[in-house]
Amino acid sequence: MAGQPLFQRLALIGVGLIGSSIARVARREGIATEIVGADASASARTEIEQLDLCDRVFAEPADAVQGADLVVVCTPIGAYAEVGQAIQRWLEPGAILSDVGSVKQAAIRDLAPIVPDGVQFIPGHPIAGTEHSGPKAGFAELFKERWCILTPLPGTETAAVERLATFWRRAGSMVEMMEPAHHDQVLAITSHLPHLIAYTIVGTAFGLEESTRREVIKFSASGFRDFTRIAASDPIMWRDIFLNNREAVLEMLGRFTEDLTALQRAIRWGEGEKLQDLFTRTRAIRRSIIEAKQA
Amino acid sequence: MAGQPLFQRLALIGVGLIGSSIARVARREGIATEIVGADASASARTEIEQLDLCDRVFAEPADAVQGADLVVVCTPIGAYAEVGQAIQRWLEPGAILSDVGSVKQAAIRDLAPIVPDGVQFIPGHPIAGTEHSGPKAGFAELFKERWCILTPLPGTETAAVERLATFWRRAGSMVEMMEPAHHDQVLAITSHLPHLIAYTIVGTAFGLEESTRREVIKFSASGFRDFTRIAASDPIMWRDIFLNNREAVLEMLGRFTEDLTALQRAIRWGEGEKLQDLFTRTRAIRRSIIEAKQA
Repeated sequence: MAGQPLFQRLALIGVGLIGSSIARVARREGIATEIVGADASASARTEIEQLDLCDRVFAEPADAVQGADLVVVCTPIGAYAEVGQAIQRWLEPGAILSDVGSVKQAAIRDLAPIVPDGVQFIPGHPIAGTEHSGPKAGFAELFKERWCILTPLPGTETAAVERLATFWRRAGSMVEMMEPAHHDQVLAITSHLPHLIAYTIVGTAFGLEESTRREVIKFSASGFRDFTRIAASDPIMWRDIFLNNREAVLEMLGRFTEDLTALQRAIRWGEGEKLQDLFTRTRAIRRSIIEAKQA
Repeated sequence: MAGQPLFQRLALIGVGLIGSSIARVARREGIATEIVGADASASARTEIEQLDLCDRVFAEPADAVQGADLVVVCTPIGAYAEVGQAIQRWLEPGAILSDVGSVKQAAIRDLAPIVPDGVQFIPGHPIAGTEHSGPKAGFAELFKERWCILTPLPGTETAAVERLATFWRRAGSMVEMMEPAHHDQVLAITSHLPHLIAYTIVGTAFGLEESTRREVIKFSASGFRDFTRIAASDPIMWRDIFLNNREAVLEMLGRFTEDLTALQRAIRWGEGEKLQDLFTRTRAIRRSIIEAKQA
């Protein structure tokens, strides 16, 4: 059920899980007349071509952004500064520049300074993903009924923000506006800290002696396997998230560690009521999430 | 495709998620001629009757175990000592007494002393469950292709162990023998610690100011919701697990905290390579779990 195209040429810089999902849904929904991609990895480019995800695919971001009226940076955050340098002089007047990264203050730090006059820079973040990565991992339904957060800077044209919001709505998302710093705080607790903890415990389990380690895999159905799924997420993307949302992650990690220490003490001293109280509260929280249809 | 009954009368002490799943699969597979249940909760007994899960259901464990040749204790571990006292003089000679609890040394501590001569006590633990609880939450497929660990004590009759193993295999499980102390160690890392961490982070998130809390629910799709699912597990069951596997949980928690502190330091000092190395290793671990078909 394709509608009128919103953009003439959509350029995706980085065509991995998120970029390729955007390509798929944009084509299916007819959101852009032409979809071009850039990816630094030769094997990714081969996959993109084989899967016919883009009309044209390039190695260089500069080649992709020429003539594009929407450019979405979908690389790991650590590559933003370099991408910004590469595309700066090729961004077309009237174009919208956006991204999909999980740390909005870092996106603003690295991309805002390179934005030429006449180009609207609107940082974005679709709250969607899987533990898989690469062009093959994407799918058109990834954004369906998921939130997409936009964090426009003061002075951004309202019409441009509305056009990008429409883009995401047509991709299936619900759109929310937020302050960049607040976004980074909320994501630190809902996403970054859970990933850090999952990576840690999976690492801890595999620091155990060999015999136990084999059994950890065998008996992972008991809780552990949910953590291994999270801890299978893209290593470079996540390295960049932690390095670029350092303050908020360390703040949330501090709170978590305090709470964990209190529970540790309750276990050591056999304080069953404290444990039961917390476990009863967290069960209620799960219900709120189910009611909010985000389960 | 029901086979010959293995037991004449199966008595389930506690008919919640696990007990009711055993009742369902035992009836479907014809593993026991008669299934009787005991549950201390009047509302649970009503549900058990309405769902027709057992042939007879009682309030008192003693009433259920009379004439049973297999008794499986499916209550939270904290109730084992009391259940043991209640059933001791009603256990029939030749019967097998087992359980499904997540801490085998605690099961042995509380049940082994009450086992009369002529009764075979074989602690067991099906590695299966969901975050739901109560008789309604059970289903016959819960144990399918999941491990069930038996931790028989020295001197247990081989034939009795083999009979209980056959029971679990007919319920769909793969059966493994293990030392009780080793079981408690392996479960501490694969199950108890993941649950403790999930409970903690969900609690931490809800200690945040009200405005952030609402957004945590809204944007939970980004990693957090997997934790909320785990942290929705039965509060009393989990209180009892932590209180009864204290040493092993505190040991694993100590290792986890050391590893988390090292990662915290790497984030603070911007040591990207350390992060990426760990994240790359944990991704490989996920693959082993998928290969072991426990994903």
